[in-house]
Amino acid sequence: MPLVSITAHTSQSGEALARLGDAVHDALVTHCGVPAQDRFQVRRRVEQDELVFDPSFLGVERRDPVFVEITLRNGRTIAVKQALYRAIAEGADAAGIRKEDVMIVLRENAEPDWSFGNGIAQYVPGS
Amino acid sequence: MPLVSITAHTSQSGEALARLGDAVHDALVTHCGVPAQDRFQVRRRVEQDELVFDPSFLGVERRDPVFVEITLRNGRTIAVKQALYRAIAEGADAAGIRKEDVMIVLRENAEPDWSFGNGIAQYVPGS
Amino acid sequence: MPLVSITAHTSQSGEALARLGDAVHDALVTHCGVPAQDRFQVRRRVEQDELVFDPSFLGVERRDPVFVEITLRNGRTIAVKQALYRAIAEGADAAGIRKEDVMIVLRENAEPDWSFGNGIAQYVPGS
Repeated sequence: MPLVSITAHTSQSGEALARLGDAVHDALVTHCGVPAQDRFQVRRRVEQDELVFDPSFLGVERRDPVFVEITLRNGRTIAVKQALYRAIAEGADAAGIRKEDVMIVLRENAEPDWSFGNGIAQYVPGS
Repeated sequence: MPLVSITAHTSQSGEALARLGDAVHDALVTHCGVPAQDRFQVRRRVEQDELVFDPSFLGVERRDPVFVEITLRNGRTIAVKQALYRAIAEGADAAGIRKEDVMIVLRENAEPDWSFGNGIAQYVPGS
Repeated sequence: MPLVSITAHTSQSGEALARLGDAVHDALVTHCGVPAQDRFQVRRRVEQDELVFDPSFLGVERRDPVFVEITLRNGRTIAVKQALYRAIAEGADAAGIRKEDVMIVLRENAEPDWSFGNGIAQYVPGS
């Protein structure tokens, strides 16, 4: 169910972003109860002037940030979201991306807002 | 009002995605009460490694999936969303895209969240 | 906190979109109480057939539209959103982009839905 979008400058390698994508998925599985097979991601690398960021907002020293946007069903607690962020940052670190450079934004929707193919709303009971 | 984003691998032709865009719009008009002129879409074709998917989650056999993301005002019933999904899948099929490959995600907002130009919130009464 | 996405045809220059990005940020700071440092944007220019629009929906004469998508925390009033739209349109005009061509879509989320780096949910008290 989560749809994950990862956007970074071309200065981040495709390999690093792929590993970050793995880390995001693992964190969703571990902390948000997402099934291991439920993996849908789009990654994008853009030119330097196409991604604009502040290098120090809220005291975080950013050099080459990556925007991780996750759309998922509502219902996760604050504690779960905090655990998710920590796990993604740790996974990014292991992937060679600085923790300071990992920006995460969640957008929530509801069960009827997903179709996983065949024109069916699979999360609606009885579909 | 709906803003539609369609993302697929470059293995899907631009023509197929254009026809899918037509089908998505027709389905919104038929099932969601969207005016025929209310059409705003962004289509994007990405490299193979930039779009990641699971080939069998929830028992749907995906080969070359297309992500259809729709932002629209809240208020549609579950039955309307189900009819929308069915119509999009049928339209995709007619466009030469397998029904199994059509992933749909809805994101809802509210009437004040739209400006259609001139700096006006056209859906707010009195604007 | 706001994450801003700007999408236009390649017929809009990168410089014009950069100035529009400045205008969007200034409008968020002036009307939505966003800190001046809180600036995160992605800009994208796409081919003619990748961005589809209606040239006259709701009586607005569009020629080369720009889609401005803003994700931000909930809580802004309708009046604030209206002031935001007006300011963005005026800034676009100053940037050489027609007011009629500025489409704006807001998506709201909540404080726990943001991490600005280091795996921390900075807007959650006590984080």
